[in-house]
Amino acid sequence: MAPPLSFSILVRDPGSAARVGRIETRHGAIDTPAFMPVGTQGTIKGLLPSLVAATGAQIVLGNTYHLMLRPGSALVASLGGLHGFMNWPGPILTDSGGYQAYSMSDLTTLSDEGVSFRSIVDGSMVHLSPERAIEVQNQLGADIIMALDDCPPSVDPATMSQTRLRTRAARSRSALGYDHARRLDEAGERTIRWLERCKAAHARADVQSLFGIVQGGTDLDRRSRSAAQVCGVELPGYAIGGVAVGEGFSEILNVVRHTAPLLPPEKPRYLMGVGYERDLVAAVRAGVDMFDCVLPTRNGRNAYAFTPRGAVRLRNATYAEDAGPLDPECDCMACRPDLNGWRTEAGHHFSRAYLRHLFMAREMLGPILVSLHNLRHFQRLMLDIRRAIRDNDWLAFGRRWPVAKEGLVGVGEGDLGGAGGSV
Amino acid sequence: MAPPLSFSILVRDPGSAARVGRIETRHGAIDTPAFMPVGTQGTIKGLLPSLVAATGAQIVLGNTYHLMLRPGSALVASLGGLHGFMNWPGPILTDSGGYQAYSMSDLTTLSDEGVSFRSIVDGSMVHLSPERAIEVQNQLGADIIMALDDCPPSVDPATMSQTRLRTRAARSRSALGYDHARRLDEAGERTIRWLERCKAAHARADVQSLFGIVQGGTDLDRRSRSAAQVCGVELPGYAIGGVAVGEGFSEILNVVRHTAPLLPPEKPRYLMGVGYERDLVAAVRAGVDMFDCVLPTRNGRNAYAFTPRGAVRLRNATYAEDAGPLDPECDCMACRPDLNGWRTEAGHHFSRAYLRHLFMAREMLGPILVSLHNLRHFQRLMLDIRRAIRDNDWLAFGRRWPVAKEGLVGVGEGDLGGAGGSV
Repeated sequence: MAPPLSFSILVRDPGSAARVGRIETRHGAIDTPAFMPVGTQGTIKGLLPSLVAATGAQIVLGNTYHLMLRPGSALVASLGGLHGFMNWPGPILTDSGGYQAYSMSDLTTLSDEGVSFRSIVDGSMVHLSPERAIEVQNQLGADIIMALDDCPPSVDPATMSQTRLRTRAARSRSALGYDHARRLDEAGERTIRWLERCKAAHARADVQSLFGIVQGGTDLDRRSRSAAQVCGVELPGYAIGGVAVGEGFSEILNVVRHTAPLLPPEKPRYLMGVGYERDLVAAVRAGVDMFDCVLPTRNGRNAYAFTPRGAVRLRNATYAEDAGPLDPECDCMACRPDLNGWRTEAGHHFSRAYLRHLFMAREMLGPILVSLHNLRHFQRLMLDIRRAIRDNDWLAFGRRWPVAKEGLVGVGEGDLGGAGGSV
Repeated sequence: MAPPLSFSILVRDPGSAARVGRIETRHGAIDTPAFMPVGTQGTIKGLLPSLVAATGAQIVLGNTYHLMLRPGSALVASLGGLHGFMNWPGPILTDSGGYQAYSMSDLTTLSDEGVSFRSIVDGSMVHLSPERAIEVQNQLGADIIMALDDCPPSVDPATMSQTRLRTRAARSRSALGYDHARRLDEAGERTIRWLERCKAAHARADVQSLFGIVQGGTDLDRRSRSAAQVCGVELPGYAIGGVAVGEGFSEILNVVRHTAPLLPPEKPRYLMGVGYERDLVAAVRAGVDMFDCVLPTRNGRNAYAFTPRGAVRLRNATYAEDAGPLDPECDCMACRPDLNGWRTEAGHHFSRAYLRHLFMAREMLGPILVSLHNLRHFQRLMLDIRRAIRDNDWLAFGRRWPVAKEGLVGVGEGDLGGAGGSV
């Protein structure tokens, strides 16, 4: 039988490590570079699956941590797996649950056995081992599943400001006696041991593809070591984890530019949890193929609309009487509502004034429309990134996406390096 | 120029006063008997207008009270009126704002001048007179607008239980010295004076149709007097108001069966704010053509799904592993998701278990899907009511809609009266 995932590189950018490709799965194809909307609890918040598909998304992400706690992976399996449960017929990726176990729960124990934590749903004790993380993901049935990794803070809590010590886990790590370097070494060694166990436990390799995750924080030597170890395990794809956990743009960029070339060029590369438009552009040019991020939906629910020229914060009184669309160039259902042959005669878009009204009146349709817009914004960004690679024309791209310009700077020879300012 | 509203009666039920008809407006046609979803603040809560249209709704209702307070009717007018503002190109009806002014606000003064109350949005004092209610509705631009009426409680607060004394207005009316009979007389006389003022103030009679409202509480003599007075003013349609404010089924039915025949048979009859399936069926058979109610959306947001066999309360643990749809006969987007050519391969419906999960996880998609289902449920009910009238087959209707059977009983000769039990 054919492997459950194949990856073809169709076009390579002569001026950077970017490539246009296509991932084939049992549930359909994904054009890369790809952006994956996040459907934490088995739903992209507020959106019918058909509307998510209409934004151009070809793959969505589900969170193992949330789904194992509620409604439980065995129930999801009995209802057709995550595809059937949430009525998303296309490709799905699930994470391992590790990241949320560290960041969202009261961490009770972390050892080679795994991680034990209190459920945020009912307070019960839950154990997540490499074997259990894979068993749960085998039950959820996503096309791409992720290895359980030990995911320490990338920045030493001792050097973090109080406001950045947000999570309980980070606070516990800031306790006396914590040695950040030792913790990173331990995490790196454990991650590779767990990866072997995940691969051995994977019972559905005929239909699901397991990806490994490179860790190492912001230390580039550790990233090199982790990449060598993780990529030493033969897998259909590899991810860069442990970024976008509080660092700035330049730190993310350093790690990605260092790590992406260390991953096998013929396999898909996935940068977890990133990010803003400039981050995606810079990572694509470093050779990354897949992204996920909650920004479009989370910000959308908070009246924050993305546009190629920057954010529109709809609560601002500036927009109270603004008859224009969020983005005149956008073809989303908020900016150009035309669904299923049903056309508006009265208006051609939902005005900023109307969207602002919805948020002021706490109406669900506000989060819905701005989430749809933001998801389409990121899909349009990916379409234009793929076009820029195919046409070898990042200058035109930069003109269309001023907000992403920073991501075009300094990717070595042949890029827009010094010319970035004039894009 | 043609009048802004025309009403044709296409089929009359030989066994009751029910009729199938068609209302034509500047924004399209409405098949009657019709059910109008309520979009209080310029949105049917949680639903894109195209999805509302896909449920079969041909007209929606907007609440003048809410829209005049936020965002204000002048702003709505500047953004294309309510049709353009909310992107609903079909017919719209607005109420006068009076009912909410009485029931939702701290009532400060009620006199022949009008009603003054505190805004629930910003606490400012707002005055609503007959002239102002029409001015606001002229700005909102709905196809059908309602006269401001004096809307007293239909039941004497002195006879109401404490739990039914819900609203501030009802509590204030229960004060010592309140004379319910005198209050009803006053309201009846004021309503007819205000109706004349509304008609005189109506500045857009070429594009908007003003309906009058018959009041009178549960007292049938008062209803007769009010009907004679209100219908003495020449208008394109008439409504029965002041029901569904706390009475039971039999009280509503008494009022409707008494009042509907007193309204001109060649004009549309609108029963405001009613109700459950049996109420609609009984009222249709009494000769009513138009309905609005928040039940499908309000209950939908609370995990309460309507089916022809009764309610499915999704929070119930019974449904935790239920793989079936809400209603196997239903063709809504929850029970048979198939939108815009995008088909699910994995599943053919959203299961009760999945919908329950959405509510347990407080996901917006739960309220969205159940609201869509409930709206479609009521539109399917109206479709079947129209079919029952056309085919003169209420027996078949009763078999398809067990939940509405009570509404088939006791409408005089030729109906299912005594046979109701065998339906």
